[in-house]
Amino acid sequence: MTKVKHTCLFKWDRSDVLRYKEKGNHFKDITRQLLYPGRPELPVQLRYFELAPRGHSTLERHHHVHMVMVIRGSGEVLVGNEIQKLESFDLVEIPPKTWHQFRATAGETFGFLCLVTVDRDRPELPNAEELAWLKQDPKVGGFIRYEAPLTPVGVQ
Amino acid sequence: MTKVKHTCLFKWDRSDVLRYKEKGNHFKDITRQLLYPGRPELPVQLRYFELAPRGHSTLERHHHVHMVMVIRGSGEVLVGNEIQKLESFDLVEIPPKTWHQFRATAGETFGFLCLVTVDRDRPELPNAEELAWLKQDPKVGGFIRYEAPLTPVGVQ
Repeated sequence: MTKVKHTCLFKWDRSDVLRYKEKGNHFKDITRQLLYPGRPELPVQLRYFELAPRGHSTLERHHHVHMVMVIRGSGEVLVGNEIQKLESFDLVEIPPKTWHQFRATAGETFGFLCLVTVDRDRPELPNAEELAWLKQDPKVGGFIRYEAPLTPVGVQ
Repeated sequence: MTKVKHTCLFKWDRSDVLRYKEKGNHFKDITRQLLYPGRPELPVQLRYFELAPRGHSTLERHHHVHMVMVIRGSGEVLVGNEIQKLESFDLVEIPPKTWHQFRATAGETFGFLCLVTVDRDRPELPNAEELAWLKQDPKVGGFIRYEAPLTPVGVQ
Protein backbone atom coordinates (compact mmCIF):
# COMPACT_ATOMS: atom_id res chain seq x y z
CA MET A 1 0.00 0.00 0.00
CA THR A 2 1.32 3.42 -0.86
CA LYS A 3 0.49 5.77 1.96
CA VAL A 4 1.85 9.29 2.05
CA LYS A 5 1.64 10.66 5.56
CA HIS A 6 0.90 14.27 6.28
CA THR A 7 3.83 14.77 8.61
CA CYS A 8 3.16 18.25 9.92
CA LEU A 9 0.84 21.04 8.93
CA PHE A 10 0.69 21.01 5.11
CA LYS A 11 3.90 19.05 4.71
CA TRP A 12 3.92 15.48 3.42
CA ASP A 13 6.63 12.87 3.63
CA ARG A 14 8.25 11.75 0.37
CA SER A 15 7.50 15.25 -0.97
CA ASP A 16 10.27 17.78 -1.26
CA VAL A 17 9.09 21.33 -0.83
CA LEU A 18 10.26 23.00 -4.00
CA ARG A 19 10.41 26.65 -4.66
CA TYR A 20 8.18 26.89 -7.67
CA LYS A 21 10.08 27.50 -10.91
CA GLU A 22 13.36 28.49 -9.43
CA LYS A 23 14.36 30.56 -12.42
CA GLY A 24 12.27 33.52 -13.41
CA ASN A 25 10.61 36.51 -11.91
CA HIS A 26 6.97 35.91 -12.83
CA PHE A 27 5.98 34.54 -9.44
CA LYS A 28 6.54 35.33 -5.79
CA ASP A 29 6.78 33.31 -2.58
CA ILE A 30 5.28 30.06 -3.86
CA THR A 31 6.25 26.48 -3.09
CA ARG A 32 5.18 23.15 -4.59
CA GLN A 33 4.96 19.59 -3.28
CA LEU A 34 4.20 16.63 -5.53
CA LEU A 35 1.75 14.48 -3.54
CA TYR A 36 0.82 11.92 -6.21
CA PRO A 37 3.04 11.29 -9.23
CA GLY A 38 0.45 9.37 -11.26
CA ARG A 39 0.58 5.87 -12.77
CA PRO A 40 -0.66 4.37 -16.04
CA GLU A 41 -4.03 3.44 -14.53
CA LEU A 42 -4.52 6.97 -13.13
CA PRO A 43 -2.31 9.27 -15.23
CA VAL A 44 -2.75 12.45 -13.22
CA GLN A 45 -0.59 14.30 -10.74
CA LEU A 46 -1.72 15.92 -7.53
CA ARG A 47 0.38 18.85 -6.37
CA TYR A 48 0.10 21.16 -3.39
CA PHE A 49 0.98 24.80 -3.96
CA GLU A 50 1.40 27.24 -1.15
CA LEU A 51 1.65 31.01 -1.45
CA ALA A 52 2.93 33.11 1.43
CA PRO A 53 0.89 36.23 2.20
CA ARG A 54 1.15 38.55 -0.82
CA GLY A 55 2.68 35.79 -2.93
CA HIS A 56 1.42 34.98 -6.41
CA SER A 57 1.73 32.36 -9.11
CA THR A 58 2.80 33.04 -12.67
CA LEU A 59 0.29 34.66 -15.00
CA GLU A 60 0.08 31.96 -17.67
CA ARG A 61 -2.10 29.78 -19.88
CA HIS A 62 -1.85 26.29 -21.41
CA HIS A 63 -3.91 23.62 -23.12
CA HIS A 64 -4.10 21.38 -20.07
CA VAL A 65 -6.73 21.87 -17.41
CA HIS A 66 -6.25 22.55 -13.70
CA MET A 67 -8.69 21.31 -11.11
CA VAL A 68 -7.95 23.16 -7.90
CA MET A 69 -9.19 22.73 -4.33
CA VAL A 70 -8.17 25.15 -1.61
CA ILE A 71 -7.17 23.44 1.62
CA ARG A 72 -5.42 26.25 3.51
CA GLY A 73 -6.41 29.85 4.06
CA SER A 74 -7.91 31.96 1.34
CA GLY A 75 -6.94 34.11 -1.62
CA GLU A 76 -8.03 35.05 -5.10
CA VAL A 77 -7.71 33.76 -8.62
CA LEU A 78 -7.95 35.37 -12.03
CA VAL A 79 -9.41 33.05 -14.68
CA GLY A 80 -9.83 34.74 -18.06
CA ASN A 81 -11.25 38.11 -17.09
CA GLU A 82 -12.95 36.95 -13.88
CA ILE A 83 -11.55 37.35 -10.39
CA GLN A 84 -12.90 35.04 -7.70
CA LYS A 85 -12.31 34.85 -3.98
CA LEU A 86 -11.40 31.33 -2.90
CA GLU A 87 -11.73 29.93 0.60
CA SER A 88 -10.82 26.60 2.10
CA PHE A 89 -12.49 23.67 0.33
CA ASP A 90 -13.72 25.77 -2.60
CA LEU A 91 -12.96 24.24 -6.00
CA VAL A 92 -12.16 25.97 -9.25
CA GLU A 93 -11.44 24.63 -12.72
CA ILE A 94 -9.02 26.46 -15.02
CA PRO A 95 -10.19 25.69 -18.57
CA PRO A 96 -7.79 25.19 -21.51
CA LYS A 97 -5.96 28.22 -22.95
CA THR A 98 -7.23 30.59 -20.28
CA TRP A 99 -5.00 33.18 -18.61
CA HIS A 100 -4.88 32.62 -14.88
CA GLN A 101 -3.03 33.74 -11.78
CA PHE A 102 -3.41 32.92 -8.09
CA ARG A 103 -2.71 35.54 -5.43
CA ALA A 104 -2.58 35.37 -1.62
CA THR A 105 -4.46 38.62 -1.18
CA ALA A 106 -6.07 37.93 2.21
CA GLY A 107 -2.97 38.54 4.34
CA GLU A 108 -2.65 34.84 5.06
CA THR A 109 -0.97 31.75 3.65
CA PHE A 110 -2.96 30.36 0.73
CA GLY A 111 -2.59 26.66 -0.09
CA PHE A 112 -4.33 24.58 -2.71
CA LEU A 113 -4.32 21.17 -4.33
CA CYS A 114 -3.91 21.23 -8.10
CA LEU A 115 -4.73 18.26 -10.29
CA VAL A 116 -3.28 17.92 -13.81
CA THR A 117 -2.68 15.19 -16.37
CA VAL A 118 0.79 13.63 -16.38
CA ASP A 119 1.16 14.45 -20.09
CA ARG A 120 0.69 18.17 -20.48
CA ASP A 121 1.96 21.13 -22.44
CA ARG A 122 4.26 23.79 -21.08
CA PRO A 123 2.69 27.02 -19.83
CA GLU A 124 2.79 30.04 -22.08
CA LEU A 125 3.54 33.51 -20.68
CA PRO A 126 1.89 36.61 -22.12
CA ASN A 127 3.78 38.71 -24.63
CA ALA A 128 3.54 42.50 -24.56
CA GLU A 129 0.51 42.56 -26.83
CA GLU A 130 -1.39 39.96 -24.80
CA LEU A 131 -0.51 41.75 -21.58
CA ALA A 132 -1.81 45.04 -22.99
CA TRP A 133 -5.00 43.28 -24.06
CA LEU A 134 -5.47 41.83 -20.56
CA LYS A 135 -4.86 45.20 -18.94
CA GLN A 136 -7.61 46.85 -20.99
CA ASP A 137 -9.94 45.66 -18.27
CA PRO A 138 -9.03 47.86 -15.26
CA LYS A 139 -10.18 45.16 -12.83
CA VAL A 140 -7.84 42.64 -14.45
CA GLY A 141 -5.08 45.22 -14.85
CA GLY A 142 -5.23 45.99 -11.14
CA PHE A 143 -5.08 42.31 -10.22
CA ILE A 144 -2.30 40.87 -12.30
CA ARG A 145 1.29 40.83 -11.15
CA TYR A 146 3.74 40.51 -13.98
CA GLU A 147 7.29 41.48 -14.66
CA ALA A 148 8.66 41.12 -18.14
CA PRO A 149 11.45 38.56 -18.48
CA LEU A 150 14.83 40.01 -17.69
CA THR A 151 16.34 41.11 -20.98
CA PRO A 152 20.09 41.13 -21.50
CA VAL A 153 21.58 44.49 -20.75
CA GLY A 154 24.64 45.54 -22.71
CA VAL A 155 27.82 46.25 -20.84
CA GLN A 156 27.59 49.84 -21.88
CA MET B 1 -14.94 29.96 -14.84
CA THR B 2 -16.34 26.96 -13.05
CA LYS B 3 -16.14 27.51 -9.35
CA VAL B 4 -17.74 25.14 -6.89
CA LYS B 5 -18.17 26.81 -3.56
CA HIS B 6 -17.81 24.97 -0.30
CA THR B 7 -21.12 26.13 1.14
CA CYS B 8 -20.90 24.83 4.67
CA LEU B 9 -18.67 22.40 6.45
CA PHE B 10 -17.91 19.61 3.95
CA LYS B 11 -20.87 20.39 1.72
CA TRP B 12 -20.43 21.82 -1.76
CA ASP B 13 -22.93 23.53 -4.00
CA ARG B 14 -23.92 21.75 -7.21
CA SER B 15 -23.24 18.49 -5.37
CA ASP B 16 -26.08 16.39 -4.13
CA VAL B 17 -25.26 14.41 -1.05
CA LEU B 18 -26.03 10.86 -2.06
CA ARG B 19 -26.34 7.91 0.14
CA TYR B 20 -23.67 5.68 -1.28
CA LYS B 21 -25.08 2.75 -3.26
CA GLU B 22 -28.61 2.94 -2.09
CA LYS B 23 -29.25 -0.73 -2.68
CA GLY B 24 -27.24 -3.28 -0.82
CA ASN B 25 -26.07 -4.09 2.64
CA HIS B 26 -22.30 -4.07 2.21
CA PHE B 27 -21.77 -0.57 3.56
CA LYS B 28 -22.97 1.55 6.46
CA ASP B 29 -23.56 5.26 7.03
CA ILE B 30 -21.67 6.58 4.02
CA THR B 31 -22.48 9.48 1.72
CA ARG B 32 -20.94 10.68 -1.54
CA GLN B 33 -20.68 14.06 -3.28
CA LEU B 34 -19.37 14.42 -6.82
CA LEU B 35 -17.12 17.50 -6.71
CA TYR B 36 -15.60 17.33 -10.20
CA PRO B 37 -17.25 15.35 -13.00
CA GLY B 38 -14.24 15.34 -15.35
CA ARG B 39 -13.89 16.56 -18.93
CA PRO B 40 -12.04 15.23 -21.99
CA GLU B 41 -8.89 17.23 -21.15
CA LEU B 42 -8.89 15.92 -17.55
CA PRO B 43 -10.89 12.68 -17.58
CA VAL B 44 -11.01 12.06 -13.85
CA GLN B 45 -13.65 12.49 -11.20
CA LEU B 46 -13.16 13.85 -7.70
CA ARG B 47 -15.64 12.61 -5.13
CA TYR B 48 -15.99 13.26 -1.42
CA PHE B 49 -17.03 10.34 0.76
CA GLU B 50 -18.06 10.74 4.34
CA LEU B 51 -18.53 7.98 6.88
CA ALA B 52 -20.41 8.60 10.11
CA PRO B 53 -18.76 7.22 13.27
CA ARG B 54 -18.69 3.43 12.95
CA GLY B 55 -19.64 3.63 9.26
CA HIS B 56 -17.80 1.67 6.60
CA SER B 57 -17.48 1.41 2.84
CA THR B 58 -18.03 -1.74 0.84
CA LEU B 59 -15.30 -4.37 0.90
CA GLU B 60 -14.47 -4.51 -2.81
CA ARG B 61 -11.82 -4.53 -5.51
CA HIS B 62 -11.56 -3.35 -9.13
CA HIS B 63 -9.06 -2.66 -11.89
CA HIS B 64 -9.22 1.10 -11.53
CA VAL B 65 -7.09 2.94 -8.99
CA HIS B 66 -8.20 5.17 -6.15
CA MET B 67 -6.12 8.08 -4.97
CA VAL B 68 -7.50 9.16 -1.61
CA MET B 69 -6.81 12.17 0.60
CA VAL B 70 -8.42 12.48 4.02
CA ILE B 71 -9.80 15.96 4.70
CA ARG B 72 -12.02 15.35 7.73
CA GLY B 73 -11.39 13.40 10.92
CA SER B 74 -9.63 10.08 10.93
CA GLY B 75 -10.28 6.40 10.40
CA GLU B 76 -8.70 3.26 9.01
CA VAL B 77 -8.37 1.51 5.70
CA LEU B 78 -7.70 -2.07 4.70
CA VAL B 79 -5.69 -2.37 1.47
CA GLY B 80 -4.85 -5.96 0.56
CA ASN B 81 -3.83 -7.41 3.92
CA GLU B 82 -2.61 -4.15 5.44
CA ILE B 83 -4.57 -1.94 7.80
CA GLN B 84 -3.49 1.69 8.09
CA LYS B 85 -4.66 4.53 10.28
CA LEU B 86 -5.48 7.62 8.25
CA GLU B 87 -5.61 11.16 9.56
CA SER B 88 -6.51 14.44 7.92
CA PHE B 89 -4.38 15.21 4.88
CA ASP B 90 -2.85 11.72 4.69
CA LEU B 91 -2.95 10.19 1.22
CA VAL B 92 -3.34 6.58 0.24
CA GLU B 93 -3.40 4.86 -3.13
CA ILE B 94 -5.54 1.77 -3.68
CA PRO B 95 -3.75 -0.26 -6.39
CA PRO B 96 -5.62 -2.24 -9.06
CA LYS B 97 -7.40 -5.48 -8.06
CA THR B 98 -6.77 -5.01 -4.35
CA TRP B 99 -9.41 -5.66 -1.72
CA HIS B 100 -10.09 -2.53 0.30
CA GLN B 101 -12.48 -1.15 2.86
CA PHE B 102 -12.63 2.17 4.74
CA ARG B 103 -13.93 2.32 8.30
CA ALA B 104 -14.65 5.23 10.65
CA THR B 105 -13.11 3.53 13.66
CA ALA B 106 -12.01 6.60 15.63
CA GLY B 107 -15.45 7.52 16.96
CA GLU B 108 -15.61 10.54 14.65
CA THR B 109 -16.81 11.44 11.18
CA PHE B 110 -14.28 10.35 8.56
CA GLY B 111 -14.27 12.21 5.24
CA PHE B 112 -11.98 11.79 2.26
CA LEU B 113 -11.50 12.87 -1.32
CA CYS B 114 -11.31 10.01 -3.81
CA LEU B 115 -9.94 10.45 -7.30
CA VAL B 116 -10.78 7.99 -10.10
CA THR B 117 -10.76 7.89 -13.88
CA VAL B 118 -14.07 8.67 -15.61
CA ASP B 119 -13.90 5.36 -17.49
CA ARG B 120 -13.63 2.61 -14.93
CA ASP B 121 -14.77 -0.90 -14.23
CA ARG B 122 -17.44 -1.83 -11.75
CA PRO B 123 -16.34 -2.98 -8.29
CA GLU B 124 -16.31 -6.66 -7.54
CA LEU B 125 -17.50 -8.03 -4.19
CA PRO B 126 -15.88 -11.04 -2.57
CA ASN B 127 -17.47 -14.45 -2.97
CA ALA B 128 -17.53 -16.91 -0.09
CA GLU B 129 -14.18 -18.41 -1.05
CA GLU B 130 -12.47 -15.04 -1.33
CA LEU B 131 -13.96 -13.94 1.95
CA ALA B 132 -12.69 -17.08 3.67
CA TRP B 133 -9.25 -16.44 2.19
CA LEU B 134 -9.25 -12.86 3.48
CA LYS B 135 -10.35 -13.99 6.93
CA GLN B 136 -7.45 -16.41 7.23
CA ASP B 137 -5.48 -13.46 8.52
CA PRO B 138 -7.01 -12.76 11.96
CA LYS B 139 -6.07 -9.09 11.74
CA VAL B 140 -7.95 -8.76 8.46
CA GLY B 141 -10.80 -10.96 9.66
CA GLY B 142 -11.29 -8.72 12.67
CA PHE B 143 -11.30 -5.60 10.53
CA ILE B 144 -13.61 -6.36 7.66
CA ARG B 145 -17.32 -5.75 7.81
CA TYR B 146 -19.28 -7.79 5.34
CA GLU B 147 -22.75 -9.20 5.02
CA ALA B 148 -23.51 -11.62 2.25
CA PRO B 149 -25.99 -10.37 -0.33
CA LEU B 150 -29.59 -11.03 0.65
CA THR B 151 -30.59 -14.24 -1.01
CA PRO B 152 -34.20 -14.89 -2.03
CA VAL B 153 -36.10 -16.76 0.60
CA GLY B 154 -38.85 -19.16 -0.50
CA VAL B 155 -42.41 -18.53 0.66
CA GLN B 156 -42.32 -21.69 2.71
